[in-house]
Amino acid sequence: MTHAPIPGYRYDDPHLPESPVTAGDLEGLTAATLFSDTDVAALKLAGEVLADQTEQILDVWYGFVGSHPHLLAYFSTPEGVPVDAYLAGVRRRFGQWITDTCTRPYDARWLAQQEEIALRHTSAKKNATDGVRSVPHVPLRYLIAFIYPITATMRPFLAAKGHAEEEVEAMHQAWFKAVTLQVALWARPYAGAAW
Amino acid sequence: MTHAPIPGYRYDDPHLPESPVTAGDLEGLTAATLFSDTDVAALKLAGEVLADQTEQILDVWYGFVGSHPHLLAYFSTPEGVPVDAYLAGVRRRFGQWITDTCTRPYDARWLAQQEEIALRHTSAKKNATDGVRSVPHVPLRYLIAFIYPITATMRPFLAAKGHAEEEVEAMHQAWFKAVTLQVALWARPYAGAAW
Repeated sequence: MTHAPIPGYRYDDPHLPESPVTAGDLEGLTAATLFSDTDVAALKLAGEVLADQTEQILDVWYGFVGSHPHLLAYFSTPEGVPVDAYLAGVRRRFGQWITDTCTRPYDARWLAQQEEIALRHTSAKKNATDGVRSVPHVPLRYLIAFIYPITATMRPFLAAKGHAEEEVEAMHQAWFKAVTLQVALWARPYAGAAW
Repeated sequence: MTHAPIPGYRYDDPHLPESPVTAGDLEGLTAATLFSDTDVAALKLAGEVLADQTEQILDVWYGFVGSHPHLLAYFSTPEGVPVDAYLAGVRRRFGQWITDTCTRPYDARWLAQQEEIALRHTSAKKNATDGVRSVPHVPLRYLIAFIYPITATMRPFLAAKGHAEEEVEAMHQAWFKAVTLQVALWARPYAGAAW
């Protein structure tokens, strides 16, 4: 089976700039989030469990954002009209992000991709990837707030394939850690030297 | 029973400056974290469950920080010597923060207190409350990363008084939301206009 490339998805692009975040910075964050090899294994299993549920997960997340005008605003023109092409473009990369979170090694390339995602929330790079006219940035407070819904809504999907309760819980905790870790990385361009 | 006042604790101080965060900003964040009246009730119960467990919770959290030199550094001199008076002063307020999180209304006064806590992580106010010589700020990335341990380690304490599994889960989800919401507020001074 082959897949069409995802527009704007640069994970394997050799021209993706390196992240200013070092391997030492990442080690400090994995320690602070208690992220360990057990979580790597649990996320690998989660990747298998979630593989054919991506569209349903995105339906839940997009339903959540779409039902809150103050959140949909970040996918809309400055005048408040939702930009369908933008919603659709982000959606494909968001689906791939679920897979990457579960299956990619958290190495220098992954850090480069996290930095790219980070910048795409800020005035440095928002809107440019999809060539859309929208508001200039996503406020940092919502990146942090979304740790809750992006974590909590995942549990039923992790439980949907009949794994034992302890396995579901291990996958869910690993997911929670991985989301928290990534939001910490995405905060970098917002905070400058105090990051 | 009377308690000695907690040095540096300003919740009920009429001179505590108002927060620049508005009631509308807070409403946007409670919606984004799915925080509702159900969570207010669950936190009230959590406050009762946790009331006589504060010291044990703080032992877990301080044990975690103390076992990681790169985290203990924020309670240490710039040369890396832990400042006992600083650890002790923060500890008393940290214990009170658990109670406040569970029992205080999330109103303008609570927002003022969140802003005060926020600033005490930054070069604007860190170290001044306890009159200590330590590093100038806590990096934003660790405030965010700590959402995981501060949430995950709470569950056994919420379960310790024999409540039904659904009640424990409701308390734990409410705690997770409340911590995430507060870290989003504490990020404000780090991000300026992009907050």
